[in-house]
Amino acid sequence: MEGRRRLVPALFPFMRIVVDVMGGDHGSGVVVNGVVSALRAEGNDRIRQVFLVGNEKEIHPVLARHHCTDPRVEVVHASEVLTMEDKPVEGLRRKRDCSIVRAVELVKDGKADAVISPGNTGGVVAAATLKLRPLPGVDRPGIAAVIPAPDNDFVLLDAGANIECRPRHLLHYAIMGSLYSQHILGYKRPRVGLLSVGTEDVKGNDLTLEAFKLCKLVDINFIGNVEGHDLFANRVDVVVCDGFVGNIVLKTCESLAKGFFSWLKRELTKAPHRAIGAFLAQAAFRTIKRRVDPDNIGGAPLLGLNGTVMIAHGSSSDRAIMNAIRITSEAISHHLVEHIQQDIAEANQRVEAMSAPSRGAAVAALASS
Amino acid sequence: MEGRRRLVPALFPFMRIVVDVMGGDHGSGVVVNGVVSALRAEGNDRIRQVFLVGNEKEIHPVLARHHCTDPRVEVVHASEVLTMEDKPVEGLRRKRDCSIVRAVELVKDGKADAVISPGNTGGVVAAATLKLRPLPGVDRPGIAAVIPAPDNDFVLLDAGANIECRPRHLLHYAIMGSLYSQHILGYKRPRVGLLSVGTEDVKGNDLTLEAFKLCKLVDINFIGNVEGHDLFANRVDVVVCDGFVGNIVLKTCESLAKGFFSWLKRELTKAPHRAIGAFLAQAAFRTIKRRVDPDNIGGAPLLGLNGTVMIAHGSSSDRAIMNAIRITSEAISHHLVEHIQQDIAEANQRVEAMSAPSRGAAVAALASS
Repeated sequence: MEGRRRLVPALFPFMRIVVDVMGGDHGSGVVVNGVVSALRAEGNDRIRQVFLVGNEKEIHPVLARHHCTDPRVEVVHASEVLTMEDKPVEGLRRKRDCSIVRAVELVKDGKADAVISPGNTGGVVAAATLKLRPLPGVDRPGIAAVIPAPDNDFVLLDAGANIECRPRHLLHYAIMGSLYSQHILGYKRPRVGLLSVGTEDVKGNDLTLEAFKLCKLVDINFIGNVEGHDLFANRVDVVVCDGFVGNIVLKTCESLAKGFFSWLKRELTKAPHRAIGAFLAQAAFRTIKRRVDPDNIGGAPLLGLNGTVMIAHGSSSDRAIMNAIRITSEAISHHLVEHIQQDIAEANQRVEAMSAPSRGAAVAALASS
Repeated sequence: MEGRRRLVPALFPFMRIVVDVMGGDHGSGVVVNGVVSALRAEGNDRIRQVFLVGNEKEIHPVLARHHCTDPRVEVVHASEVLTMEDKPVEGLRRKRDCSIVRAVELVKDGKADAVISPGNTGGVVAAATLKLRPLPGVDRPGIAAVIPAPDNDFVLLDAGANIECRPRHLLHYAIMGSLYSQHILGYKRPRVGLLSVGTEDVKGNDLTLEAFKLCKLVDINFIGNVEGHDLFANRVDVVVCDGFVGNIVLKTCESLAKGFFSWLKRELTKAPHRAIGAFLAQAAFRTIKRRVDPDNIGGAPLLGLNGTVMIAHGSSSDRAIMNAIRITSEAISHHLVEHIQQDIAEANQRVEAMSAPSRGAAVAALASS
């Protein structure tokens, strides 16, 4: 996706981003490094302010090491951290002053437009949903994961925020995924598919069969059901499923890709001539490895809330954080939240009108009577 | 898996296998080729009889071409075929004399022990379930797919027979998958995991949370929840999930593996030195490609029925059919059906005893009163 669209520097910087620097697997230093790199990268003169939320005793030394005196950086102290081991809701109740809560509150209070966190995914979802609230008309926010494929990167959602879904939730994911694909990945008319066990309309479980009917009613490029075979074959750009299926599919793909590379490495080092061959062909492996590296994507947005929320991988490198800031900037400058609110409202209206045609007739009959 | 166990020739051949030669993507010829190869392969003197069910006008010429006059082969004519386009239940109702029905009936009537079909999966499931009936105590049969991984091939079930599952169905899949892994793949104490969105006991949806409790009660090596990340990391040997999730995971893995190989090929042919490197390292690629080739596995059994049912891939080659016959022979000689019946009965008893402890107490109280 890099380079698909050039960032245009704004005449007046306007973006205010909060970064929860705690909770990632590699500690706060890596996250602060990523922020400093982002602030120094080309095109990021659009950023007006970056709040770094976390333990100030950890943050200041890292900033000092980078000789970073950028006036746009403001450190906000939080005394606690929601760790990967904490249960989300219980942890949030116990740790009142944890960094993710403080970070989300800055967006809630209108001091910032977006929040980025590499912390406990369940914790980010819970804190953001609780504090920012879903957009009007949206029942449940969903995580949109971008998955690299040979010919087209596709969006998979929900990737794990909403385990028990209803058909309406899937409809909203279809709309939000389509908008994300358009505005952030640059697809003109993304092909939206419902993940099921066969491509025929009648294939699926109760949830997908109902969601199928809803998706046909709204203004997206809905191509119907897709199955596992379609994902890496350039047949679909937005893959819609519940958070249980999405989380399993995402992690299975990551596991298979990782297993594949280590398998390849093992086979390529089994004989000297194979190793020489691998050396000659190393650019080919590097190209693929770079494309599938999750650090390229940076983060997965939690869509459907009053504010931009980006969940970075727990094991994010500084480059991942930098890329997370890049796509967050894109989401803000493209007014993604506003587009979602508008399109969901229209879709809800249309679904309601289509699913209650007799009500309109009844009103007309009442009026004329 | 090949070579993990040597087939021991039986003194008295005893296996009777039915092969539905119609309905595969490549026509009946390929299937008959596979059967002939299997009958001529080492170790297959255990086979007493093979029924070839389908259009006799297609079958006899292929047998003649192979100069096959093996007295063990019997051709059973069926005038119709359930195609990939047919809806299973409706198709079976319409096509009374289709090959899959005739094939299953031979097992039902006690004339054969097992049936193999490369046809319409839904059709095979419907015909086999209808005619053979589930084993006592089993509610729903499940498809067990063997997935090749770098360090351990694992069994995934259900891979698509049962889209709307209940917790008890998953319990039965755990038991059947464990038995299949032991008897056919040769694992001593296979690690059985429940596919979910996190490894903690409390992670999952309503279905998996309930199934988790049941799996803990029975005598299998249940390691708890596993997630997508665990699949290709040698952490689990039997992956249990409902047919909706299983079908999506199986097909996604196939799609990703295929996409990966074509991507690699594209990158390796982009420059002359890469192509030379690929040539030198070709044995490495070939090893992996051969291991992940579905034709190696041959077929996925439909477990839990009164009889052995093997579903071969629609696009099975003759080698796939030969391998399907090989694993079918293994299943018969290991008395897999009998083991399943026995273990399921024990598990059901144990679950009932554990889930109604007060009933036993009540009976005792009644008796003493």
